[in-house]
This record gives sequence, C-alpha cells and structure tokens, in this order.
Amino acid sequence: MPLMAGIFISLEGGEGAGKSTVLSALREVLAESGREVVCTREPGGTPEGEAIRELLLAPGRELVPEAELLLMFASRAQLVRQVIRPALARGAAVLADRFTDASFAYQGGGRGLDAGHIAELERWAAGLRPDLSFLLDVGVSQGLARARSRGGEPDRIEAERVDFFERVRATYLARAAAEPGRFRVIDASQSATAVRDAAVTALRTWLAGQP
Amino acid sequence: MPLMAGIFISLEGGEGAGKSTVLSALREVLAESGREVVCTREPGGTPEGEAIRELLLAPGRELVPEAELLLMFASRAQLVRQVIRPALARGAAVLADRFTDASFAYQGGGRGLDAGHIAELERWAAGLRPDLSFLLDVGVSQGLARARSRGGEPDRIEAERVDFFERVRATYLARAAAEPGRFRVIDASQSATAVRDAAVTALRTWLAGQP
Repeated sequence: MPLMAGIFISLEGGEGAGKSTVLSALREVLAESGREVVCTREPGGTPEGEAIRELLLAPGRELVPEAELLLMFASRAQLVRQVIRPALARGAAVLADRFTDASFAYQGGGRGLDAGHIAELERWAAGLRPDLSFLLDVGVSQGLARARSRGGEPDRIEAERVDFFERVRATYLARAAAEPGRFRVIDASQSATAVRDAAVTALRTWLAGQP
Repeated sequence: MPLMAGIFISLEGGEGAGKSTVLSALREVLAESGREVVCTREPGGTPEGEAIRELLLAPGRELVPEAELLLMFASRAQLVRQVIRPALARGAAVLADRFTDASFAYQGGGRGLDAGHIAELERWAAGLRPDLSFLLDVGVSQGLARARSRGGEPDRIEAERVDFFERVRATYLARAAAEPGRFRVIDASQSATAVRDAAVTALRTWLAGQP
C-alpha cells in the first residue's frame, strides 16, 4: 500500500512582491484537487511561533543577527513538528508563506551570517525542504515603493536599508539558479493579475507532472 | 602593552543546589580584587533575552525540544554580544548564572537532543566558554525537595519528571569529568554554609593561580 504523502510548497519574495494575492490563488488551485490545504506563515503559525514573531518584528528591538536567525529557526522547528509534518503525513498540501530560503536570503544575504550555519540548522532544526518553491522577484525600489503605498508602520525588518534588500534579492536569485528543479521564478514587476496567472500556470504544470 | 582581559566564570547546578547563596558569595570575592563584576542570568540578561525567558518558562507552552534549544541560544547570542564580550573587553569579571553547559545538560541530557548540534551552536552562536565553571552537585530527590520547600508555582522546566533531572545531573557530571581544568564540582548536599565556603575557597585558589 503506498504511503499517503502530502506536497509541500513554499512562496518566497521580498517586500512588495505581491505574495498575498498569489498565495490565495495557489490555495484555490490546490483545493481543486480535493486535497486538504494547510497554509502557514513564518515566523509564526503556532502559538509559540506567534510569540516569537512578535519578538522578532517589534520595532525598537536590538536583536543581534545570530539571535534573529535562531529565533527564526525556533519558530520553524515548532511549525514543522506541530503543523507541517502532521499535515504532510495526512496527505495534505502545505502552502508556506516563506520557509528556510527566507533565512538564507534575510539572515544570510541580508545580515551577512555564514550560509554554512544556516544549512546546518536547515538539516536538523527544520529537517525538510519544500517540493516546489515560488520566488516572486521584483526590483528592490519597485518592491519597496509598492510596500510603502500599502501604508502602515514598517516592522523592524521592513525598516532596513536598500542595500540590505539588494543582498536579500541577490541571495534568493542565486538559490533559485542553484536549484532550478525546485524553484519557479516569477517576474513580479508585472501587474498583480499577470503575476498571479504566471504562478497559477506554473503550479498547474507542476501538479500535472506529479505521479 | 598587555591587553586588558576579563575573567569569565559560570555557575551551574540543578534545582535546589543553592546557586543564589553561592552566587552572592562569589560576587563578593571577585569584587574584593577591585575588578568590575558583571552578573548575568540565563535565559535572560538583556531586554530581548528576558522576553525569550518568559516565552521559555511560561507554564503551559508546548515547545518542541529543538525550539527550546534555539531559544536558549538566541538569548545567549544576545547576552554574549551585548553584555559579556563588552564586559570582558573592559577587564571585568563576568559571573554567569548558567551558560552553555546548561544547554548540554537540559536540552542535550534532559531532552535528548544531539550534543553535536549543541557543540556547533556553542562555536558560532555563543562563541566563548567560561575560564572557570562551578558545578553545584546534589542528588535529584534532595534538590527537588529543597526547591519545593521554597514554595511557588514551578516553571515549565522545573515541572519535569525525576528521570529528566537524573539525566541533567549525569550530563553535568560527565562534562565536569571531561574538563577537570575548567570545572570545580562542589558537593551541594552539604549545608548552605558549607557549600558556600567550599565555592569561595575554590575561587580564591583559582584566582591566586591566575597570572
């Protein structure tokens, strides 16, 4: 008897890339297949993770990069064991609003922490990697302009400078280039509708190729 | 010109070992030398660390062991960079109420996490090790009876079972045996006065041997 195995999909992208619109479109596509769909967000997604999220994003905190990375993985370790693994074991589709690639991009590329340490944490603290990852890629100035037009107070990480986001973007693109089988890079400089349609098409194609 | 170098001393021990009494006695001895003395506690010791402490010790939280370990090291990474390293650079004596040995004992021995992962975090997230460590060792049932006689609600970790604390104690003793140059094991089954005097004598002897 075959094991009931779920599918694990992550959605990555910088500020103002349009993740929310794409997230709900991908959710609908996954639901069409009749599968249970579980959506998660990072940091957060569990009561403990949401408490960590508050700590991480509160403006005015002076977290050292190492503490920021460890808090991200503490939240992720909790999420994987309490939500993602049980869902995959039930055969669900898990749709994650950010996963470990975000740590490589933000804490590695952005903050300059050694990628080797992050890879080590990925192995034992996260312990799994998405089957498919979408990267919504948009130029930093366009993305930040969009994020600012949404209004509201920027959180601690959103308040970083442009060169920080340039390094985040470059790291995301390098990861996508290194793993073309897992990543689908979507040009997020397009209109929200075009971005959504490109992501939906890529997901349908991928699903059609699954056993 | 010689570099002004501080000294870094940690105090470890299970529940009811009498750390508080020893801590203030050691503090006095260190202050006699005219050095600045900086006392820290773990988890905690910085605003961010205290927020992490609350998250870690709140009764009712269901933290997975990996998240618990990562939160401990997030607090420690912050403490090392914001408090301990600057103090050592000023030539101060840092007296730490628990440090990385506690992670090996509680999250390694107690929770069963791989010691290799903890050693990896010690290298890059903590990045330093005490010059001298006191281990106040007492049998688990005697220690727990003392801790309970203090009254109050036990925190999340204090509420663990006896076999958990047996593993914590065994791990502490194994670490002390492996590093006899750094550790001073004090028999904490004795009276509070005897324990304090033994620790004070050991510290004075160590200080006399320092260059």
